[in-house]
Amino acid sequence: MPHIALPNLPGIRGPMAFRPETSKPLNELVEVLLRHPNSLTPGERELIATYVSSQNNCHYCQSIHGAIAAAHLGGDEELVQCVKDDFHAADVSPKMKALLNIAGKVQQDGKNVTPEDVAAARAEGATDLEIHDTVLIAAAFCMYNRYVDGLATVQPQDPSLYRERGKMVARDGYVAANLTNVASAPAPELVAR
Amino acid sequence: MPHIALPNLPGIRGPMAFRPETSKPLNELVEVLLRHPNSLTPGERELIATYVSSQNNCHYCQSIHGAIAAAHLGGDEELVQCVKDDFHAADVSPKMKALLNIAGKVQQDGKNVTPEDVAAARAEGATDLEIHDTVLIAAAFCMYNRYVDGLATVQPQDPSLYRERGKMVARDGYVAANLTNVASAPAPELVAR
Repeated sequence: MPHIALPNLPGIRGPMAFRPETSKPLNELVEVLLRHPNSLTPGERELIATYVSSQNNCHYCQSIHGAIAAAHLGGDEELVQCVKDDFHAADVSPKMKALLNIAGKVQQDGKNVTPEDVAAARAEGATDLEIHDTVLIAAAFCMYNRYVDGLATVQPQDPSLYRERGKMVARDGYVAANLTNVASAPAPELVAR
Repeated sequence: MPHIALPNLPGIRGPMAFRPETSKPLNELVEVLLRHPNSLTPGERELIATYVSSQNNCHYCQSIHGAIAAAHLGGDEELVQCVKDDFHAADVSPKMKALLNIAGKVQQDGKNVTPEDVAAARAEGATDLEIHDTVLIAAAFCMYNRYVDGLATVQPQDPSLYRERGKMVARDGYVAANLTNVASAPAPELVAR
């Protein structure tokens, strides 16, 4: 049960509907970071978000962003799981492995990122913008994860709920998808535990 | 030296000038959380941001937000230091102590916040909105701190630089203050280490 009286929506959607003034920049940030045109694909950026959320052990965030990543990657849920379990062994590019290494350092403490970590990413072709965005995606998910867990939001267990919404967000984006938080009543199956 | 080629500005102002698309929602979020009308004063909210930044050991963020807090609190730098050192002993309200306790839990892991922590804040008069905003301020500074440290931004040591900019941000706000990142060249003394 959430710590405060939130609208009956799963995960971050509850506090976002509770406080539209803060949900606007929170949605815009994730839209720019994960969906705007970028040399990292939306699937690659969602994998970074999923990995960090997994390291922070946030069930809702790793499930929904894992589902969005899979939707972008042709439904490859196995790849998403492999990145969470051990990205070194995953079928992603050497550049992605170097960026996931940086994201994992940021998740613990920004000061853990070394010049060697950054040089390794550059050696695999990472640009300054890609390194910047990787650091900010990792930092941002340290926020989103704490927001979702710190208010004890409702976090459904059924993977099919995340799979369905993941497809929708991958198609329509965050800002559009979250308009439904306010504009319409939630589907009952989306709020079941 | 920063990990990537950033504009020569201290702390978060470097990456914010580097990437205006993400700095827009980052600035808007902190403006709503720390400055918009609220039953918690701007000084109280800056104290929460300063405390979390101190727990994350982010020199730039704890220095600038500590300076902004002091500017809001009639220049009381001793109170700011006391909140960082041991908020239980600080001259702040029992409600603020209960909220700082929640912020400290969120800084470590959102899941550490217990129903008892929340009940203790409510017993001191905290509203749902105040509890929500405390959780989100703490979560947001776990992002800002990692962003600043994860890119190895320039973080000046001289307290007088923070004191001066703190007064300006307390007076003009974040969005207005950060327009100067792009609109004008930085004053040399603000970029010295």
